[in-house]
Amino acid sequence: MAFLALTGGIGGAKLGLGLARILDPGALGFVVNTGDDFEHLGLHISPDMDTLTYTLAGISNTATGWGRRDETWRFMAALEALGGETWFRLGDADMALHHSRTEMLKAGASLTEATRTLSAKLGLAYAILPMSDDPVRTLVHTADGPLAFQHYFVRDRCRPQVTGFEFAGAEAASPCPDLLALLPVCEGVVVCPSNPFVSIDPILAVPGLKTALKACGAPIVAVSPIVGGASIKGPTAKMMRELGVPSTAAQVAEHYRGFIDGLILDAQDAGLHGTLGLPTRVEPSVMASLADRERLAGAALDFIKELRGG
Amino acid sequence: MAFLALTGGIGGAKLGLGLARILDPGALGFVVNTGDDFEHLGLHISPDMDTLTYTLAGISNTATGWGRRDETWRFMAALEALGGETWFRLGDADMALHHSRTEMLKAGASLTEATRTLSAKLGLAYAILPMSDDPVRTLVHTADGPLAFQHYFVRDRCRPQVTGFEFAGAEAASPCPDLLALLPVCEGVVVCPSNPFVSIDPILAVPGLKTALKACGAPIVAVSPIVGGASIKGPTAKMMRELGVPSTAAQVAEHYRGFIDGLILDAQDAGLHGTLGLPTRVEPSVMASLADRERLAGAALDFIKELRGG
Repeated sequence: MAFLALTGGIGGAKLGLGLARILDPGALGFVVNTGDDFEHLGLHISPDMDTLTYTLAGISNTATGWGRRDETWRFMAALEALGGETWFRLGDADMALHHSRTEMLKAGASLTEATRTLSAKLGLAYAILPMSDDPVRTLVHTADGPLAFQHYFVRDRCRPQVTGFEFAGAEAASPCPDLLALLPVCEGVVVCPSNPFVSIDPILAVPGLKTALKACGAPIVAVSPIVGGASIKGPTAKMMRELGVPSTAAQVAEHYRGFIDGLILDAQDAGLHGTLGLPTRVEPSVMASLADRERLAGAALDFIKELRGG
Repeated sequence: MAFLALTGGIGGAKLGLGLARILDPGALGFVVNTGDDFEHLGLHISPDMDTLTYTLAGISNTATGWGRRDETWRFMAALEALGGETWFRLGDADMALHHSRTEMLKAGASLTEATRTLSAKLGLAYAILPMSDDPVRTLVHTADGPLAFQHYFVRDRCRPQVTGFEFAGAEAASPCPDLLALLPVCEGVVVCPSNPFVSIDPILAVPGLKTALKACGAPIVAVSPIVGGASIKGPTAKMMRELGVPSTAAQVAEHYRGFIDGLILDAQDAGLHGTLGLPTRVEPSVMASLADRERLAGAALDFIKELRGG
């Protein structure tokens, strides 16, 4: 009786919002990448969880794609004057979420529990689940050496040339228990159009998670984050080029082969339909408006229904 | 070639500013109460250091007596919405100081070093010294049981009836090394009109500090925080009543007897002049204007000079 969405930050959260608008809270759970999480200024920052949470709560900053709307930056300005680290921008109101989460974790709560408490305070009833309560940290291997994800992504603005990825701690991590508890009632899984390498792969790197998703028998459909050879947002296409693979939706299918049961291609990639050796469906997948988000979400659910033989 | 001022927060910082305006930075050091310090929201908060620092830097909030001027409260509002603890008000810009200090302490800096770095960033060249780099925590014993200082002072607004004080950790604390290094050139010590029980006594409770101050031979003069039987600011008089001692400047003399070499009385207490068994000087000591602060600071230095036989 439930659908699960695997998601990273901004791109995934867009489709997540579409799903949230057409499904009851009890019928939708999110499995969120926490490979981006990091400790900064003593705070546990969970960028993908935050982007999703703010998006679902209707308080996200749609201009930046991260943080809160109507944000102020007094803390950052004062920190800069004191010589502090300001490459990672923390808004005055945004800080409250990081502080609250950090305090709960310090008091012994799991990340799942802290997220549940915080999202409830923001009026959200969806299951928003970290991929794991254990720390997994994405390292981006680059021509300049390994970089912690936020250093690569935010501080260095994705400029270093990528040579590979590592999910430090993954081998010792367990899937979020609440996720495993949802699988028996799972009707379908949507892999949001997030970055396959640094948003979805960290989720799938948690031992047992991928197997459990497959074992539950629900169809797994992905929405290609590559449209017409380019990323809608973020460094996906750049990473593919640097890794020496084609930056195409076909390559996305290749990347997820064996895991997904179907792939949604954008209309620009309609030519690939029927050529990828797995079920595909062609849908406009660039989500500019709220209606676009809802339509694509509906198409993903419909595709799942079709794959279930409904 | 240097004067030292022992101080707590608001009342002491007023006289501190007066001293700072008439002495060169190299000729003035502050020994600040850190018994009020506490960990809150993962931050090391040092209220008396902050009040003094902001006051000297000209960015204090003179309306509240704590925090920064032109402050905003977005963090607090967002924290409240998330169900966080908001009884201790942290302004958006103020947060930057707490975060910076906390990060430096975590990285292994002493409180003295962190304070030096932060005050330099704020353009201050005075030696602003914590009484100790070791944790000392003032506990207020009350009819309702023991309370951490900020719980008594801020959360409970000084309402519980005081029965005594405890400076937890003092027995294991050492005086700030930079303070000890200044003593050979110390010409005089000013005990600011701070609360004797919870601002000055914690300083004097650090083993060896009081003895070292006395041993340096410089005159020690206090400015009475009690004027005409009342406190200028804060709970000093209320505490004295609850402790069953007269809330008078004479009792302040009694409290400091054996430590101070002279006491400055307000004009309202001129009748006590010559009656206290120690040198006294009568000065207007209610500091409303900046000129008042400078005048009282000048009087304190003049009194020291007089006691030195200059």
